[in-house]
Amino acid sequence: MKCGNGIEARQVNELFINVDPIQAGGRLTGDAIKAIIAYGDGYSVCDNCRKPNRLDCIAKPPIAEFHKDVAAWLNMDAARMMPGARRGFQAVAHTYVSKGNPVLLTSLSHYTEFLAVEGAGGVACEIPADSNHLVTPDAAAAKIEEVKQKFGKAPVLAIIDHVDYQYGNLHDFAGIAKVAHQYDVPVLYNGAYTVGTMPVDGKVIGADFIVGSGHKSMASPAPSGVLATTAERAKEVFRTTGITGDVTGRKFGIKEPELMGCTLMGATLVGMMASFPHVKERVKHFDKELVNNRIVMEALLSIEGTKILSEYPRKHTLTRVDTTGSFDRVAETHKKKGFYFSSALNDKGIFGLIPGATRIWKFNTYGMTEKQTRYLADAFVAVAQENGLPVK
Amino acid sequence: MKCGNGIEARQVNELFINVDPIQAGGRLTGDAIKAIIAYGDGYSVCDNCRKPNRLDCIAKPPIAEFHKDVAAWLNMDAARMMPGARRGFQAVAHTYVSKGNPVLLTSLSHYTEFLAVEGAGGVACEIPADSNHLVTPDAAAAKIEEVKQKFGKAPVLAIIDHVDYQYGNLHDFAGIAKVAHQYDVPVLYNGAYTVGTMPVDGKVIGADFIVGSGHKSMASPAPSGVLATTAERAKEVFRTTGITGDVTGRKFGIKEPELMGCTLMGATLVGMMASFPHVKERVKHFDKELVNNRIVMEALLSIEGTKILSEYPRKHTLTRVDTTGSFDRVAETHKKKGFYFSSALNDKGIFGLIPGATRIWKFNTYGMTEKQTRYLADAFVAVAQENGLPVK
Repeated sequence: MKCGNGIEARQVNELFINVDPIQAGGRLTGDAIKAIIAYGDGYSVCDNCRKPNRLDCIAKPPIAEFHKDVAAWLNMDAARMMPGARRGFQAVAHTYVSKGNPVLLTSLSHYTEFLAVEGAGGVACEIPADSNHLVTPDAAAAKIEEVKQKFGKAPVLAIIDHVDYQYGNLHDFAGIAKVAHQYDVPVLYNGAYTVGTMPVDGKVIGADFIVGSGHKSMASPAPSGVLATTAERAKEVFRTTGITGDVTGRKFGIKEPELMGCTLMGATLVGMMASFPHVKERVKHFDKELVNNRIVMEALLSIEGTKILSEYPRKHTLTRVDTTGSFDRVAETHKKKGFYFSSALNDKGIFGLIPGATRIWKFNTYGMTEKQTRYLADAFVAVAQENGLPVK
Repeated sequence: MKCGNGIEARQVNELFINVDPIQAGGRLTGDAIKAIIAYGDGYSVCDNCRKPNRLDCIAKPPIAEFHKDVAAWLNMDAARMMPGARRGFQAVAHTYVSKGNPVLLTSLSHYTEFLAVEGAGGVACEIPADSNHLVTPDAAAAKIEEVKQKFGKAPVLAIIDHVDYQYGNLHDFAGIAKVAHQYDVPVLYNGAYTVGTMPVDGKVIGADFIVGSGHKSMASPAPSGVLATTAERAKEVFRTTGITGDVTGRKFGIKEPELMGCTLMGATLVGMMASFPHVKERVKHFDKELVNNRIVMEALLSIEGTKILSEYPRKHTLTRVDTTGSFDRVAETHKKKGFYFSSALNDKGIFGLIPGATRIWKFNTYGMTEKQTRYLADAFVAVAQENGLPVK
């Protein structure tokens, strides 16, 4: 099917098992598909916008209720929807970081966190991960001390990924937040890979801010995301506008400058809302995801020379693999070179590996059924065997 | 139909003639509806993202080509898609405005322009509109002189709406830009009501930046928009990241910090792309829109006591009306008070007027067929007659 203007209808998630690392948690639910069709038109959720004229106050569709539900679900006091997690980082960085201020990130931080710091004029100070690719509270403490030496003050903000995008490792966020708070550093919890896939309790983990991604982990269309915070910090990051027109004397009510006023006025927001009951339910079953993931892990490890670079056993479904000692050896002599690997998997109905990559690559089993994981596990082994690689 | 989580399927644009002032240009095309269904899932357009790993470089779907097409269509040198026009204002303001800098707006500027100035720490300096609610080049020159007196320097940026949101008046953007350039002030053209509905030629009008809204005027889902600029200014507002990780030495390639990297990774972008051929065609027929609009205007003016507050004859379909001398007189004694008016129109299949408003209100006939405008015209007259108001 054509959608006009050279766009072929996408059927990746209908025809394939999709193991793309960033796409697993963003597949829409059936309810979200219905909702985005019904609310596709521009400002579709604004039909019943009344004073005070702000997106999160609209009663029908139940946007105001949804905002309260999301905040409660994360055990935070206030939440706003954002056009992507990155816009949450940006809002918080812009509120707390001034030119030259040190900001605590990690050696595994996502690039959007760096861009948020850059935009605010801050200086990125990475907590180094250890040799197991884990960021520890001790390393955080050491880095804060180093920052204090260098800048004469503690970082003004810490942005810490609970699960990082490189290894999918689960870092001790609560421990790091505790250390940061000892230095009065507010901490942003980057839950791009956790909010919507795993249970997240903001108070228990000690987050000042929780950022989640709708299109990455909340079964929602792009761009969408959430920024939640405490009552104390809401006054700062969700402060209302103070600017005035010098001629008209106009003021702009309760609009929030860090959000640029309203954020998601249509399809993206109703997509998040429609998927939310399903998302709330699915986070309770993350243990099942790990059981399924293990089926694939064991198959990969049965292929001699394959290494799991992520922590093992896995605590998240996003995983980094090193097949330099297995699949890459085939690439040396295969007529398709490294492309044989993704090509063979595609032929078996598996999508989402970077074409040509046979050394270090990532995949994500989130949301797959047990049957699909068994199929994927068998497929990896079959591709190994078809290419003469020894399997234990 | 229910879409889950308390969301009722919206059918406003299927069951009603919708004259909501901000919704007229944002209704999806059939192609856009197909596209958002096919690309609803999270990061759906990223299947074929390859180095240099940036949204506007993706070849399939033809995102890179679309970006070039949009820039050429606006007669600008570079374009990026943004999560709403407001994020375009924000990117430009953040690039050019520092704390305390004066920024030229107008007494009819949209609140999101004020928020962009506020976010950058700037001071809003409004060019006053004249008694006809028009912003003139002379008034712009006088304001710049006033700013120079007060701040010791010219404004660092001007943000000028070609068509304002209050009256839908068409201001002399080219004349104002010419004046601003005499003082070396870069000028942002706010085309939220024009890009996608009327022809816009950036070079002819002398814009340094053109901002358009996808969900307001380009038949696209929210949040979406465009920021286009000249080759010279692209180096500034679309500059690439310069931040480095202090431990890892990581750099982040060609990601653009004012965009926070990639912007619209799925449904919103393909919605814009699929509607684009239709949007390019429809802007050529804006004259037809004004002919249709005039049918409604004449009907309203035939109701004694009704005033058109916008410039007349109309140059845009968004119009501000004063019915204090007509429909509001009925509200004084009607059992439904002011709600009788929108209620009577709803009963006739017309949607989009603020319930209760009978004094000053806005509506937009953009996109209506001649038959629909005749129906709307007759409906206004009928409601007047049914309530005993004299009609000429």
